[in-house]
Amino acid sequence: MKTLIKNARILPMTERGKVIDGDLLVEDGVIRGVGLTYRGDADVVIDGSDHILLPSFIDSHTHISMVLMRNYRDTCEELMCWLSEMFPIEAKLNSNDIYHASLLGIAELIRSGTTCFADMYYHTLGTIRAVKESGIRGIIGPTLIGDANDARHIINEHLPWLRDEIGDSDRARLDITVHSIYTCSAETFELATEWAERNGAHIGTHISETEIEISDSQRLHGMRPVEYLDYIGGFLDGRTYLAHGIWLSDEELEIIRRHGASIVHNPISNSKLASGIANVSKYRKMGINVALGTDGASSNNNLNMLKEINYAALLSTVSNMTPAALPPYDVLEMATVCGARALGLEDRIGTIEEGKDADFIMINTDSVNMCPVNDPYSAVVYSADRSNIDYVFCKGRALLEKGELTTLDGEKLIRNTKTVWDDIQRRE
Amino acid sequence: MKTLIKNARILPMTERGKVIDGDLLVEDGVIRGVGLTYRGDADVVIDGSDHILLPSFIDSHTHISMVLMRNYRDTCEELMCWLSEMFPIEAKLNSNDIYHASLLGIAELIRSGTTCFADMYYHTLGTIRAVKESGIRGIIGPTLIGDANDARHIINEHLPWLRDEIGDSDRARLDITVHSIYTCSAETFELATEWAERNGAHIGTHISETEIEISDSQRLHGMRPVEYLDYIGGFLDGRTYLAHGIWLSDEELEIIRRHGASIVHNPISNSKLASGIANVSKYRKMGINVALGTDGASSNNNLNMLKEINYAALLSTVSNMTPAALPPYDVLEMATVCGARALGLEDRIGTIEEGKDADFIMINTDSVNMCPVNDPYSAVVYSADRSNIDYVFCKGRALLEKGELTTLDGEKLIRNTKTVWDDIQRRE
Repeated sequence: MKTLIKNARILPMTERGKVIDGDLLVEDGVIRGVGLTYRGDADVVIDGSDHILLPSFIDSHTHISMVLMRNYRDTCEELMCWLSEMFPIEAKLNSNDIYHASLLGIAELIRSGTTCFADMYYHTLGTIRAVKESGIRGIIGPTLIGDANDARHIINEHLPWLRDEIGDSDRARLDITVHSIYTCSAETFELATEWAERNGAHIGTHISETEIEISDSQRLHGMRPVEYLDYIGGFLDGRTYLAHGIWLSDEELEIIRRHGASIVHNPISNSKLASGIANVSKYRKMGINVALGTDGASSNNNLNMLKEINYAALLSTVSNMTPAALPPYDVLEMATVCGARALGLEDRIGTIEEGKDADFIMINTDSVNMCPVNDPYSAVVYSADRSNIDYVFCKGRALLEKGELTTLDGEKLIRNTKTVWDDIQRRE
Repeated sequence: MKTLIKNARILPMTERGKVIDGDLLVEDGVIRGVGLTYRGDADVVIDGSDHILLPSFIDSHTHISMVLMRNYRDTCEELMCWLSEMFPIEAKLNSNDIYHASLLGIAELIRSGTTCFADMYYHTLGTIRAVKESGIRGIIGPTLIGDANDARHIINEHLPWLRDEIGDSDRARLDITVHSIYTCSAETFELATEWAERNGAHIGTHISETEIEISDSQRLHGMRPVEYLDYIGGFLDGRTYLAHGIWLSDEELEIIRRHGASIVHNPISNSKLASGIANVSKYRKMGINVALGTDGASSNNNLNMLKEINYAALLSTVSNMTPAALPPYDVLEMATVCGARALGLEDRIGTIEEGKDADFIMINTDSVNMCPVNDPYSAVVYSADRSNIDYVFCKGRALLEKGELTTLDGEKLIRNTKTVWDDIQRRE
């Protein structure tokens, strides 16, 4: 199966500012030619003129099923108050709810240019099924929360089923995540680390999201959150992704850098929950890999990486009082290359290069909000929105074609989500 | 001519949190019924179910023709550097360029829910023509820049033509604007004030956009920018709108409040140019009227009030470290009610009430990024994007219908803008 994109403006994300005008050839899900003028046959030919083609986005931290709680009781003063609204409703959820919510969340991800997401949630059997059906890549991180008994229950009772459900999927992968240092014991972190090592999995957690978390950690453990993670031992390494990472001391940043762990920046959620501003420009300068994620739609309130990219650039610029803090290329790198690295997928995705999987999007520049283009990197970061995305490919398969979902029925998903959500709210 | 919207969820913007479920009846451009169940005949009936209906947005500070310079040389370190990139290209523009650019800018405004904008620019004959053709409301503020001679030239040679061009339009209005205290003399401000008083016009300027402007003003005039405006005399009153207003002392805020002048918040442009964060939450608490604007697409890089609304809410929340700083209702008020007040149009637009002009939008909530709705105010501010806007009405006329422009040909505008822009860049 050969797909040929003709005459696109390609941002390969392999080198700062690089733009390649030409064709893209895809064969059996893999990129076979970039920027050539291809004269052979192809099964599918798409006109790429007036389109910017770039790697599809990687949402490196989210809870996609939380679309259910979109704009639900979202007037809380800060994270802990908001969590106290979320926990009771989350306690009512089951795998069927999660399946329907995951499908809706995946539809929103695809429509806004994302083909890979790292999920941290519960009842993830439903999410795995949704990933398999929809054609997206899903890094599924079932979440440990509580003490060692709770953790052992998940590890022994749930993870084997989840592994069976994933089977030999080439798009779904099982990771493990730990909710946070304020909801989990040190033993829970150790059990997660052991499981990850045994299974060659990556591992994620929420860290240093609020100032209260820092002072609580100092009071309870006599050290700051990342120092505590380091003290637990084994947890931090090149396969660890740390969500939020807002309130980090220079010493903690040095610990993260030394272990080669990644930070996932969630600027919209961090702003909406009044958690704070992570100075990712500084983290990047220190050599830390910083990916980008939407967090859940309950604190965002979208799953839209293009919006997250725009917001990250603007927020870093104004909070550092210089556009040099996070130029367009850098923020796009976070959403593609750095996400792939955080999730250990840098050999397969994140750039447009021969031999890599064909995960890319095409943005229509013949739109009232994109004309004239002038600078294609700025145009993507500052002017584009999801309605400009015409095509989204994952492993060479179009999941969005001329702006329409190909693998999912949007109307049906909306109907099912409404039914499920009404039912959840009626449950005792 | 009667238009009936059936079964909408109406946010009238007349009272915090108020939601009216029911019909909206429009007759000859005016709202005749809100929330009733209307059983009479109508010429046009639109199903409003699964839609949120609210006042259309008022972009209270922009330079719509600067869509030409979208993403053009936008990597400058700060405002003055960026202006030095803009001024040479602006010197090449003529009324024909401005006409085509204005049409494109208006198309972008309509597509994102705006039906009234306050423009500050040059060669505005072209903008007036575009307003008349497109069906939008345009408050046209030709800009004085330079000394008294420059000002007299514009006032004597240009404004009479512009007044003729406006004629008896019920949608276009002529105001006057002064570029800034750092590009204009005190006499220029005085001449503008005289003209505004003589013509019953409103008057706008850029003020306190950067820290450099403050220190320069203190050095040159021995006072801060708003103190200087106050000193000029007559300029500040209830008909003055002040764009940006980032670096304001408590004394300056008190001057603005005392005169009843309005501030126009431009958070995206202020962030992108690294100018700073205006603490609009504080301004509002002091009783100052704060409107919202996009500024030009050359420093935004869109003309999208829905995006501006979302950004304003998130930025105020994180910079004040509390979501109470600018809740959804408040930011929507800035984009509707406060904009109408700043421009002296509060009797006609800004709310959904009987007797007001029928300027409103309808947002489709049956969308993957809007489901479930939960809280309609949060849904508009935090989840909606322009692709969810199905209808945009101005004075009872649909300018956007089922997501399509009715008065403008988007493809033609894009083609013309590209041609004009290519030509401008080739000019000596």
